[in-house]
Amino acid sequence: MPIRPATPADIPTILRFIRELAAYEREPDAVVATEADLLRDGFGPEPRFTALIAEQAGEAAGFALYFRSYSTWLGHHGIRLEDLYVTPAHRGKGLGKALLAHLARIAVEEGCPRLEWDVLAWNQSAIDVYEAVGARTQTEWRIMRLAGEPLARLAEQAGKLHD
Amino acid sequence: MPIRPATPADIPTILRFIRELAAYEREPDAVVATEADLLRDGFGPEPRFTALIAEQAGEAAGFALYFRSYSTWLGHHGIRLEDLYVTPAHRGKGLGKALLAHLARIAVEEGCPRLEWDVLAWNQSAIDVYEAVGARTQTEWRIMRLAGEPLARLAEQAGKLHD
Repeated sequence: MPIRPATPADIPTILRFIRELAAYEREPDAVVATEADLLRDGFGPEPRFTALIAEQAGEAAGFALYFRSYSTWLGHHGIRLEDLYVTPAHRGKGLGKALLAHLARIAVEEGCPRLEWDVLAWNQSAIDVYEAVGARTQTEWRIMRLAGEPLARLAEQAGKLHD
Repeated sequence: MPIRPATPADIPTILRFIRELAAYEREPDAVVATEADLLRDGFGPEPRFTALIAEQAGEAAGFALYFRSYSTWLGHHGIRLEDLYVTPAHRGKGLGKALLAHLARIAVEEGCPRLEWDVLAWNQSAIDVYEAVGARTQTEWRIMRLAGEPLARLAEQAGKLHD
């Protein structure tokens, strides 16, 4: 069986994959996550994500990490893929597609109407692969992000507005 | 207190707000969610979202609905805002900003480094409001979605690849 659920023993490998993927996405210094973070959030009392490992000849060759989103229009949770990665040595064997298919099956089994993920707009080769399996690029939407100092500043205003 | 957690008694109001927001987003027929769906997913044994109600003079005037996302780069969950809505009669009073501030406080309290949400690329007036509180538009990312027949077709291939 080439695809299996991750266990705590996989955490060092998962963190290495996360760093390799960040480097590929041109953000090599963006990863501040630690093994302790991933242990707490993947395998603690309040799981925040689920991870799958793709194996080749007993070796971890890639992974997928996801969480559950929610659609108010559809009235159901969905699967949101955060990371999908195959090591350079194992590319071109269809492992990425096998991971996506595994996720699609999980989505169908959980009754999720959607499997979604983000892609870098410049990564046309990835977009081509995704569209080849039937995914559609949601060109009409943009992601807004509030973080750091502006997040802290807005948080301080909570409860003070509307007095 | 103008902002409070939603209760099961708010579900008919929340579903009305979801429909009004979909109409505003030019997708009036996109909402297939039912009250039973929202009861199960908001208040059942496996909660999939959390909702807040903004009140004015004892009446529900808007809502925010969110779930927890995950960042592998930061090693922490984040707050993902799915819906933010204020009724036409109550706009212009800062209720939307008050809801965002409340969410920012929740994010800070939970140690989340990010509060994120999607916005329609054509909705510049909303983007202006969001950027005014310090949010940044993640112009480099696109959302991919796999749904319907292509999702089912890919799911059927799970386990059959790599035999």
